[in-house]
Amino acid sequence: MNAYENKTQAQTILDKAQACGISAEKIIDELKSLHIEVPSWAFAETGTRFGKFYQKGAAATIEEKIADAAMVHKLTGICPSVAVHVLWDFPKGANAKVVKYAEKLGVRIGAINPNIFQDQNYKFGSLTNKDEKIRQQAIKHCLESIRIAKDVGSKVLSIWLADGTNFPGQEDVIDRRNRLADSLKQIHKAMPKDMMMAIEYKPFEPASYFTDVADWGMSYLLSKKAGPQAKVLVDIGHHYTSQNIEQIVAWLIEENMLGGFHFNDRRYADDDLTTGSIDPYQMFRIFHEIITAKQVRRKNPPIAYMVDESHGIKPKLEEMIQSIDTIHQSYAKALLVDRKTLRDAQAQNDVIRAEETLRDAYLTDTRPLIGYVRSSMGLEPDALEAYRKSGYQKKIEKERGGRKKGGDGYA
Amino acid sequence: MNAYENKTQAQTILDKAQACGISAEKIIDELKSLHIEVPSWAFAETGTRFGKFYQKGAAATIEEKIADAAMVHKLTGICPSVAVHVLWDFPKGANAKVVKYAEKLGVRIGAINPNIFQDQNYKFGSLTNKDEKIRQQAIKHCLESIRIAKDVGSKVLSIWLADGTNFPGQEDVIDRRNRLADSLKQIHKAMPKDMMMAIEYKPFEPASYFTDVADWGMSYLLSKKAGPQAKVLVDIGHHYTSQNIEQIVAWLIEENMLGGFHFNDRRYADDDLTTGSIDPYQMFRIFHEIITAKQVRRKNPPIAYMVDESHGIKPKLEEMIQSIDTIHQSYAKALLVDRKTLRDAQAQNDVIRAEETLRDAYLTDTRPLIGYVRSSMGLEPDALEAYRKSGYQKKIEKERGGRKKGGDGYA
Amino acid sequence: MNAYENKTQAQTILDKAQACGISAEKIIDELKSLHIEVPSWAFAETGTRFGKFYQKGAAATIEEKIADAAMVHKLTGICPSVAVHVLWDFPKGANAKVVKYAEKLGVRIGAINPNIFQDQNYKFGSLTNKDEKIRQQAIKHCLESIRIAKDVGSKVLSIWLADGTNFPGQEDVIDRRNRLADSLKQIHKAMPKDMMMAIEYKPFEPASYFTDVADWGMSYLLSKKAGPQAKVLVDIGHHYTSQNIEQIVAWLIEENMLGGFHFNDRRYADDDLTTGSIDPYQMFRIFHEIITAKQVRRKNPPIAYMVDESHGIKPKLEEMIQSIDTIHQSYAKALLVDRKTLRDAQAQNDVIRAEETLRDAYLTDTRPLIGYVRSSMGLEPDALEAYRKSGYQKKIEKERGGRKKGGDGYA
Amino acid sequence: MNAYENKTQAQTILDKAQACGISAEKIIDELKSLHIEVPSWAFAETGTRFGKFYQKGAAATIEEKIADAAMVHKLTGICPSVAVHVLWDFPKGANAKVVKYAEKLGVRIGAINPNIFQDQNYKFGSLTNKDEKIRQQAIKHCLESIRIAKDVGSKVLSIWLADGTNFPGQEDVIDRRNRLADSLKQIHKAMPKDMMMAIEYKPFEPASYFTDVADWGMSYLLSKKAGPQAKVLVDIGHHYTSQNIEQIVAWLIEENMLGGFHFNDRRYADDDLTTGSIDPYQMFRIFHEIITAKQVRRKNPPIAYMVDESHGIKPKLEEMIQSIDTIHQSYAKALLVDRKTLRDAQAQNDVIRAEETLRDAYLTDTRPLIGYVRSSMGLEPDALEAYRKSGYQKKIEKERGGRKKGGDGYA
Repeated sequence: MNAYENKTQAQTILDKAQACGISAEKIIDELKSLHIEVPSWAFAETGTRFGKFYQKGAAATIEEKIADAAMVHKLTGICPSVAVHVLWDFPKGANAKVVKYAEKLGVRIGAINPNIFQDQNYKFGSLTNKDEKIRQQAIKHCLESIRIAKDVGSKVLSIWLADGTNFPGQEDVIDRRNRLADSLKQIHKAMPKDMMMAIEYKPFEPASYFTDVADWGMSYLLSKKAGPQAKVLVDIGHHYTSQNIEQIVAWLIEENMLGGFHFNDRRYADDDLTTGSIDPYQMFRIFHEIITAKQVRRKNPPIAYMVDESHGIKPKLEEMIQSIDTIHQSYAKALLVDRKTLRDAQAQNDVIRAEETLRDAYLTDTRPLIGYVRSSMGLEPDALEAYRKSGYQKKIEKERGGRKKGGDGYA
Repeated sequence: MNAYENKTQAQTILDKAQACGISAEKIIDELKSLHIEVPSWAFAETGTRFGKFYQKGAAATIEEKIADAAMVHKLTGICPSVAVHVLWDFPKGANAKVVKYAEKLGVRIGAINPNIFQDQNYKFGSLTNKDEKIRQQAIKHCLESIRIAKDVGSKVLSIWLADGTNFPGQEDVIDRRNRLADSLKQIHKAMPKDMMMAIEYKPFEPASYFTDVADWGMSYLLSKKAGPQAKVLVDIGHHYTSQNIEQIVAWLIEENMLGGFHFNDRRYADDDLTTGSIDPYQMFRIFHEIITAKQVRRKNPPIAYMVDESHGIKPKLEEMIQSIDTIHQSYAKALLVDRKTLRDAQAQNDVIRAEETLRDAYLTDTRPLIGYVRSSMGLEPDALEAYRKSGYQKKIEKERGGRKKGGDGYA
Repeated sequence: MNAYENKTQAQTILDKAQACGISAEKIIDELKSLHIEVPSWAFAETGTRFGKFYQKGAAATIEEKIADAAMVHKLTGICPSVAVHVLWDFPKGANAKVVKYAEKLGVRIGAINPNIFQDQNYKFGSLTNKDEKIRQQAIKHCLESIRIAKDVGSKVLSIWLADGTNFPGQEDVIDRRNRLADSLKQIHKAMPKDMMMAIEYKPFEPASYFTDVADWGMSYLLSKKAGPQAKVLVDIGHHYTSQNIEQIVAWLIEENMLGGFHFNDRRYADDDLTTGSIDPYQMFRIFHEIITAKQVRRKNPPIAYMVDESHGIKPKLEEMIQSIDTIHQSYAKALLVDRKTLRDAQAQNDVIRAEETLRDAYLTDTRPLIGYVRSSMGLEPDALEAYRKSGYQKKIEKERGGRKKGGDGYA
Repeated sequence: MNAYENKTQAQTILDKAQACGISAEKIIDELKSLHIEVPSWAFAETGTRFGKFYQKGAAATIEEKIADAAMVHKLTGICPSVAVHVLWDFPKGANAKVVKYAEKLGVRIGAINPNIFQDQNYKFGSLTNKDEKIRQQAIKHCLESIRIAKDVGSKVLSIWLADGTNFPGQEDVIDRRNRLADSLKQIHKAMPKDMMMAIEYKPFEPASYFTDVADWGMSYLLSKKAGPQAKVLVDIGHHYTSQNIEQIVAWLIEENMLGGFHFNDRRYADDDLTTGSIDPYQMFRIFHEIITAKQVRRKNPPIAYMVDESHGIKPKLEEMIQSIDTIHQSYAKALLVDRKTLRDAQAQNDVIRAEETLRDAYLTDTRPLIGYVRSSMGLEPDALEAYRKSGYQKKIEKERGGRKKGGDGYA
């Protein structure tokens, strides 16, 4: 039997939760109302610095990307919005037709990502550039992105910088930092009151000696300087090896400074792999911290959950569905943690029982539960299988397969 | 319901395996016949370079350690042997009484670990030492360990070296290497034909500039030079961050050079944490490679599975039971992999289906299956709970709690 | 010719600096007035979790440690103070005799280090402990440390915590953090107005899952919460591999939050090796940022420069002299950077010239310059050689060599 | 005074060497006869997966690349050969005109690099591919590369594979390995007796789960299986963080398995930065091991020294001259090590003296010595300055600057 269809097991899980004092209804509600944003660029061609392997079904236009995202939402039920890259998706500005097209397909435009790294002018920096003209070009592009955001109803401006240096001595660390702080302040000023600026950090790549926003501490300080609507964006792949991400997440929520996530996974560097494909336990622990903050400390910040992956080898929609499924399951496992027993074990320094309480939730096979939730939303229990059966992949491969390759996107 | 007691679910798992062409009977057999060795020192006091936190129930004598190991075996059914540290456990040589005592408790002595790192003479190396007298002292201790091994019926001599240097220039890399190769050859010569020498590698700690056996490649070459009974020992914590351990395991089996494991887990360095407590997916993937080698390539080397952890915070028996349980479950998950479908998906470059086939097994909650196996061995389904109910911990805390602290072991 | 005695070359270096507009007089002044504090525990026995190799000349009493530190100062001229560990050095409180003894030998007591990690009570935390009694014990020890600091004229309270957890679920991240913030606030309140609290961060060890102050961002936030006299302490070895330390240093100075340093070096983890023995270029770059902040941005925070190493293999005074020498030379190299040319090259995005300007200073052999400075201070040009000739090592080995080993200190 | 022109200091250095029993003449000879190969692609456009910043002076044709390489050789005197990438440099096969052109400019073609990673067919592997047609395509390209090598007089075939997998389960580790071993054997068979096959290893990128030749151990084993002319190629950037590269180099020489190097530097991943720009001490230590092998153990394998960098930000020729200069200096420093004193100190376990002996050489400013050597070869002492004065950069920027961008090369 397909695990997603095991209703008996779904019931067993819910009964056990109920027995621990966790409302089954609330679990179901939470699992239905989770929103994970998918990025438009995940459906387009991508590669590495060593080249790109083309896919027949890759999307090239914003319409195709929206259609693919909508298909993911149709099957998973929790992906109602699409993050966009201004330069790749709205090269001539946003237009009402795109917004309506998305609406028609049941999704909406989500976070707006300015592109301040591909123009030849940005060789020595964008928002940090010592050449005031180039810096203003980058700021202007961000202001334009805010205008687009307003037009399409987006509430999140995601700032990722490729800025940094490659060699000791190349530039002055602090001059760059101060220019960056000033740029972000100018951009923040232009945002409407209900928009969030999410500032991403990344320790290296493309820069190799230092990046201007290398870690969460720098992102935190720059956010504070930028203004009250600026928050920190956590990308799973943007950490030093063996850094404890869930601890950072817990701190940021406690400081009211967590803006959102870019979900993906990695083994070495910023590998942009399928979420949870390398360290699934970590995804669960991150959600455990978030739900603990919500349930135990009544912190409920509006966290923008987004996926940011770079699918070069796997078919793009399939990988996205895998990712969403893993996120959904990790969230379900985190909801199943018996926090009463956990806190009791912690209070007694019963390390084993505390850990086992966490593991009890993690070890639970939540596929039946997710299948149950999907069914109750009118969806097929197994989203990936449903996609494979849908004929969508064949259709797009046929429609898109013949055309000339190249175009926008990473690499 | 306790997951270990869910017989319906155990049956569902076995039915599904059967439907994939995996004999349920064989799974059960394999799970019953798995042998994981526990180390005597895991039951003794331990700590870090910043100090030791004492535990009331810590074992101090070889008899106490054997008793604790026997208790673990009694509850898990798969730990019939105990690795010993010659210096700490047999300071005056082995004796027949110990062997009999172990026998009486249902276990036997397993791998013999010489201690060639604590004597003041080893400041600049043991088997690598340029001072021929000191090198001979280390060799002699290993020969003595072989004699003890013969006396107690052990078939594995585990060689872990703390040898290495702390500063550039301190010593000649190759002179040390060549002396080491010679030492190992001498020791190999003294081994009976049915004994294995397992050579462990470790990239750092205690040495900080280089260790003399830094990685599997060095361990491989030294084993080849030592003789046909020398094999490579893989300790999970002895790798560079983000190194792919399962790949190394697969290569070593293919080369007929895998001797055994030291199971544990880690986040940063050689943290010696509970097996699977940080990266449970990795444990599964390691067993997946082993079972693939066995089932697909008919390679069936006699792998010595051992645990090597350093339990400073958790009660020692409980942590060992946790570890054994995780190993047992990881092995079960690896047995459940539908290798026919996997190879079929791989043959078609269907990356998603291949990965999902692996994940299907990993996501399966195998606690019911392990519970079922234990029941059929006449044991309690939930070994940890059974331990907690047994009164053993209280008993040893009472018996051992009063005495003066100190003694052997790490730190 | 011994490089330290090459006066011609010293003059060449100074002439070149002068030609770049850097006052030779100022260089000499800066090199004479640099103060590097040495830690008392660097002269005592130390080891790793695998054991301790004893040294005949190791210091055991506070008097011996002070005598050793004084000897280092006598030879290098820039080490007028000694950091102390309250528990190991003042087990019965400080006393006037020790202060006078130090004075007599030409040094004074520097930073005070409370020990809140060795007591059995701290198994589950000190300033973070959920048991209010234990937390108060740790706070009280810090208050007592402040009293001692007042008695001995010390102006720095260094807080390093071993606190953290080893396993997911073991404790609540934020509860611990909030208790810690409260503890630090209480301690801060007790400090006299001219005392600095230096809060150290460390990503792991002894804790393996998370440490409560894992990185500079956490140290920064806790310092802000503690009060205006709390600053961040940067220990070279307490970073993730490949983290850019000089960038962090630059940011902290710009934020007026850099309290001081613990100098050492490492290859893998917190190896506590001789400063500059693995990555000498990094030491230079750190000083380059400090001097840039001073000279270019007129930031001149009172940075507490301290060494913190753990000398297990090398004779302790010799290693300390090596460390001080490397620090002195790195500082000299940083003073030689032609900042005018550097900024000019940076302004033109002439990456090569900017880097070469930095490298020009780094590649300069500054031993002649340090030798010259020492001579002008009435010292021998080559401090290490002077020590070797002094007979001090033989003397202490004879005096201290016979006694029973054991005692305080790491491991 | 420009350090390269300080003849007095050059003499001081040589006098000191002579006093230590190192022949000054031999040092000069060695420094003159060092050969470092430069790669043609270092002069072409390059970038990262986030884009390419174009340079006016970038070379596009093989003739331009050879001209640039020849210019580097003209200024440094130690770069008489150019490594080529078959696909980018000889898309239509090699031709005699190119060979003559190189000859005319004073250089020759060096290592031949097949390109078995850019064709769309290689999505799931080249020499490892399970599709026999694709595997044969890759083998055929390597055989074609051997033919080209014969035509142009090259004696080195460098094999770097982008092969690997991105996700657990994607492919069978050992099947891939065995196909790779077979492919290499076939290629080895086709090589003339005086050609070396240099097999490169790399732990990740572009593959993220495992690469098929992840470390030196795998490269070693595959070389052994391929045949006697196959050796290991060490690329500085292809190691785990904190791995000890000089130890690996020493082992490989001792095993007669070191084929050559790809010099570059890195901070995080395979950053392909200017050699020695991040860790200059490491470059020195690597050469120290090589010269120790030569002088102490009389091992003198024909090591192919090559540079492999990816110059995106710095002007390409300038960066190459920087790299060659640093390599030349590192080699000079390694020649200056007083090995007699070193071995004496090592024999006495005088760790400090041993380390100081190494550091004495490293700390020596060897620019005067390199300047002296260049002068005696009829070159300008400061190669970088000479390049800047030569007008070459302006010339190529003018000649090449106007054309349309794009073309071959990484990213």
